[in-house]
Amino acid sequence: MKFASLKHPTNRDGVLHLVDRKLQSAVDVSDIAPTLQFALEHWAALERKLLDEYESLECGTDRPVIDFAKALDDGLVAAPLPRTYQWLDGSAYLSHVERVRRARGDKVPESFYHDPLMYQGGGDAMMGPRDDLECLSEDWGIDLEGEVGVITGDVKMGASPAEAAAAVRLVVLINDVSYRKLIPGELAKGFGFVNSKGLNALSPVAVTPDELGSAWCDQKGAGKLDYRLICHVREKWFGNPNAADDMTFSLFDLVSHAARTRPLKAGALIGSGTVSNHDVATGYACIMEKRLVEQVELGAAKEDFLRFGDSVEIDMFDHQGETIFGAIKNRVTKAGAN
Amino acid sequence: MKFASLKHPTNRDGVLHLVDRKLQSAVDVSDIAPTLQFALEHWAALERKLLDEYESLECGTDRPVIDFAKALDDGLVAAPLPRTYQWLDGSAYLSHVERVRRARGDKVPESFYHDPLMYQGGGDAMMGPRDDLECLSEDWGIDLEGEVGVITGDVKMGASPAEAAAAVRLVVLINDVSYRKLIPGELAKGFGFVNSKGLNALSPVAVTPDELGSAWCDQKGAGKLDYRLICHVREKWFGNPNAADDMTFSLFDLVSHAARTRPLKAGALIGSGTVSNHDVATGYACIMEKRLVEQVELGAAKEDFLRFGDSVEIDMFDHQGETIFGAIKNRVTKAGAN
Repeated sequence: MKFASLKHPTNRDGVLHLVDRKLQSAVDVSDIAPTLQFALEHWAALERKLLDEYESLECGTDRPVIDFAKALDDGLVAAPLPRTYQWLDGSAYLSHVERVRRARGDKVPESFYHDPLMYQGGGDAMMGPRDDLECLSEDWGIDLEGEVGVITGDVKMGASPAEAAAAVRLVVLINDVSYRKLIPGELAKGFGFVNSKGLNALSPVAVTPDELGSAWCDQKGAGKLDYRLICHVREKWFGNPNAADDMTFSLFDLVSHAARTRPLKAGALIGSGTVSNHDVATGYACIMEKRLVEQVELGAAKEDFLRFGDSVEIDMFDHQGETIFGAIKNRVTKAGAN
Repeated sequence: MKFASLKHPTNRDGVLHLVDRKLQSAVDVSDIAPTLQFALEHWAALERKLLDEYESLECGTDRPVIDFAKALDDGLVAAPLPRTYQWLDGSAYLSHVERVRRARGDKVPESFYHDPLMYQGGGDAMMGPRDDLECLSEDWGIDLEGEVGVITGDVKMGASPAEAAAAVRLVVLINDVSYRKLIPGELAKGFGFVNSKGLNALSPVAVTPDELGSAWCDQKGAGKLDYRLICHVREKWFGNPNAADDMTFSLFDLVSHAARTRPLKAGALIGSGTVSNHDVATGYACIMEKRLVEQVELGAAKEDFLRFGDSVEIDMFDHQGETIFGAIKNRVTKAGAN
């Protein structure tokens, strides 16, 4: 199934829709589950009903069908999960971490290869896939981070990766917005990120793992998504790293890590961290990483962080060239300028 | 007004109730606002109606009245906000930080006196005031942290402390559960707390600032609560620090800091950090701090962290000796033992 939430003037969770495989049409299923959060909390009872509607949408439905592609272009589509009680972001691609460390003449601690890095983020407002990224200042060092994430049902405290896998309900793409110039000062304080992370954007749809076929849980390992993440910055190609390659911790490992000392409740969003491959020819899913490589190889960083008016795009295609999640496209704007 | 949420078998947000000033009786107001989250999102439209019901509860109401004190003893009361999309915890009492640093022969950086420490926590499940604190292991170094917190309406990005003040809707007590022995390893990784913080418990009721009279925003400064936080550990007195004394950053400062680069959405919970006074005679609101003082003064820490079966209690009384928020009482149990 593919789920989207359409924006609503007063309901901050949006209105739940099912979207066809090619992201062209959608039906309102809010009579079955008003919101995606509700569906996640009552998954066992509602999954069959939702699946019936999804199959009808592909084969012919009695429900009024809306033009999803147009709704998306018109900015009417919210994040599939417009807010979450739990947003935790791992850092599963150590080539990303290695480049950060190398640029400051450091090595990656050995423990990083078996104990995942993860930070707790704020989930009270996820940007829609086409929403503007509003900032007060360009001096923050505005950057994208292209990621894959999973949305879970309830996960018990101490869940193993296999138990975590059974609780994964949906897969989604994430633009984890970072303010690079605020990070060093904030991390030096020792308590993680608060001001140095912005609101995230999610892809237009969140999909059930069965939509991903053999690209999910294939020979590269369970809980890894074997497709390339296509990133554009300022309307130019920026990278297409494979999301399963060079991934030290799977998404199941990350969910298990997150649940080590506390249960996770339905609707938790767990991110992979910035997708990154060792092979620099695959480019980058964040500007900082390109700057670090430039710094080491050219003596100075050249690629600028995002400025007002700049745009980023994050997408992923199946082997037939069809978009799986739809594209995230965010343009940076000055907050309060509209 | 004083708000509580009663537990419900399927609704994770509980059922909204108004509670009388002395916490003896309560009325279901879920026909006005089904949940506290809903009330916070529609505050301007609902505040007057809720206030009318609150005044009726004090003077004589047509609604069925329940015995709130009994419901609390029977474990039927959830956290007033049973889950939140945004839980951010400051560290406003620098005597707490100074003791941590002194024990390792360090000084507090000068910047800590004007740039607040704050971490992002997980808010997907707040423990009820009398719920058990379930852990898998005593080896985690289980500790309480007694705090004051505020619950806000929408706060715009870049809000000043005065603008933050206008968005504060409710005040609450918090037990911010910490796993001390997991903290050093996790903070060394640099991304803040994930495994080393447990679920938090909230006090039985959350109160509107007008309930606090001159103790809120009095001569000690706006956004500080001039009452003592009474803490018991293992049923013995542990501390009664004054929550307004030695508070470097007010709760309004902390909300403003949290909103520096992103808006906060209605229902955000912002904590003060562990209440702590320079005068050691006031005792402590967490075990670690007592251990650090023992380490410096006696050569070794004596007070043990919490063990299975141990209990903690956090409360606050007005000048008439009446509890304001009701007591948080949590007992540590082994998860899965029941």
